[in-house]
Amino acid sequence: MSNIRKIAKAAGVSIATVSRYLNGTEHVSDEVKLKIQKVIEEVNYKPNALARAVFTKNSKTIGLMVPNISNPFFNQMSSVIEENANNNGYNILLCNTDDDIEKEKKYLDVLQSHRVAGIVVARSKCKEEYGNIDIPIISFENHISDEIITVSSDNYSGGKIAFEHLYESGCRRILHIKGPKCFEATEERYRGFLDAAKEKNLEIDFIEFETDFQVEMLKENIEKLKRINKYDGIFVFNDIAAATVMKFLKMNNTKIPKDIQIIGFDNSFICELLHPSLTTINQPIQELGKATIEILIKLINNEKIPIKDYLMEVKLINRGTTIL
Amino acid sequence: MSNIRKIAKAAGVSIATVSRYLNGTEHVSDEVKLKIQKVIEEVNYKPNALARAVFTKNSKTIGLMVPNISNPFFNQMSSVIEENANNNGYNILLCNTDDDIEKEKKYLDVLQSHRVAGIVVARSKCKEEYGNIDIPIISFENHISDEIITVSSDNYSGGKIAFEHLYESGCRRILHIKGPKCFEATEERYRGFLDAAKEKNLEIDFIEFETDFQVEMLKENIEKLKRINKYDGIFVFNDIAAATVMKFLKMNNTKIPKDIQIIGFDNSFICELLHPSLTTINQPIQELGKATIEILIKLINNEKIPIKDYLMEVKLINRGTTIL
Repeated sequence: MSNIRKIAKAAGVSIATVSRYLNGTEHVSDEVKLKIQKVIEEVNYKPNALARAVFTKNSKTIGLMVPNISNPFFNQMSSVIEENANNNGYNILLCNTDDDIEKEKKYLDVLQSHRVAGIVVARSKCKEEYGNIDIPIISFENHISDEIITVSSDNYSGGKIAFEHLYESGCRRILHIKGPKCFEATEERYRGFLDAAKEKNLEIDFIEFETDFQVEMLKENIEKLKRINKYDGIFVFNDIAAATVMKFLKMNNTKIPKDIQIIGFDNSFICELLHPSLTTINQPIQELGKATIEILIKLINNEKIPIKDYLMEVKLINRGTTIL
Repeated sequence: MSNIRKIAKAAGVSIATVSRYLNGTEHVSDEVKLKIQKVIEEVNYKPNALARAVFTKNSKTIGLMVPNISNPFFNQMSSVIEENANNNGYNILLCNTDDDIEKEKKYLDVLQSHRVAGIVVARSKCKEEYGNIDIPIISFENHISDEIITVSSDNYSGGKIAFEHLYESGCRRILHIKGPKCFEATEERYRGFLDAAKEKNLEIDFIEFETDFQVEMLKENIEKLKRINKYDGIFVFNDIAAATVMKFLKMNNTKIPKDIQIIGFDNSFICELLHPSLTTINQPIQELGKATIEILIKLINNEKIPIKDYLMEVKLINRGTTIL
């Protein structure tokens, strides 16, 4: 016997009445409502969200495609996205792509098969795949196409602010440790940093890291770091990489910020754990998560909204690794 | 026109044939298979996993209930669980409970409504709720009931190993900073540490932190930490809390490990970023994630396996915060 049939029998009402009650579509008297509610509690019945999703064509599920939730920034972002989705009655299907194109494509199939109501994708590696998808999409951090809304921090301004702070703090031999070329967000930080330096007619040097987060970051980059002692100011593309650089400098007894000043990017929890605490550029993670879900739900509900890039304001968080 | 109808029409076969092809239940000739496959690729059709789930009663989705994915340990664990689930053809519905009993109960309803195939729950706050659920469950880290399998690190032995290492490194004025009383895993570490100290007839002191992870951990506990300078060895219940303690000691110019030796717990990525690198107890996160998913899938497939606690071996990772 199906669950609904059981409930109808135990409550002494028709199956159609139970169905009306569950779907809330038509009037059911308070007396009957109470009867049904009582039985539902007794048998611990949970309505089948999948069957309902097939029927209503809204699975109330959002697919979240992230490169790596172990990266403190993306895990904080996932947490904020989950919270906002949950507050709006949506659940999160988690897709960790590991920046792997095949994994992302496979998950994209899964999300379509599961008829997710919407997709949030961070740092896609297969942008062309998103053109054919008939599901509302928000791209987080990088631009996918002119048909898809992007929500991102103003990374370019962040780079500018970082330069200006180092410059005002007296640094003139400045290095930027940039993220992998393929990551738009870190490229924007680099562009902003470079433009601000040009405005001051200052030449700056660059080192590139090949990953944005990994346990062995120091070991992987130790050769490149050997020459950083000649600088007096370093802007690093994210906080974890900045922590790695600080670790290297401390191992070499370089004084921070006396000998070298450092600025990171993200304002993740790691900043306060370091000694000295890391000066950084704050990404407004709460606002980013809230805007992403709010805009996505508008798209899901077929509201008309401008298709454009939503850039959120960043700001300097001044702590102990800079002098000013 | 439904998708299947469209495919049937375009391929010039019957709807029943397309259905047989999609479900793989009955024979379809190679020639017809190729025709259908071609059309499916052309129209970019994705089979409806929800409808299939309603029909087959296996949603191929696992609900993952975690206290907080911002906590580096639980986010690494989530990442490993996702990877193992994905390798086995399962997707993850992410439920971040924030250690909030109401949020956990609500998510438990969602997971049942979504007919997840199985549930992995870490650190439940409403154990009694899991007794009534007719879905395979693995409890991660804490014991829910004798009917539910627990997969956990051997936290008790971890506490013992931590004490023995501090003792052998010459510490005699020893402090344990323990986690919140309500967390079984950290209570086990405390028990092991205490028992090992008793074996050496050494009295040890305790401080208790009220949360296991938060950005403001130092500020919250600064009063308690003011008296820790009198100890020569400290075992802290997790790496993040240990990093917080190290930060406090550095702010007070205490030399680590010369004046005070420190051991953390987890072996999260933070250990290598600290200076000196943090000696810690390794939780075998890969094995934990693999075992959790393997056992859960056996339960989903109705295989008979012993209902018991699976304890995974921990070990000391000796780094720079201890002398030996």
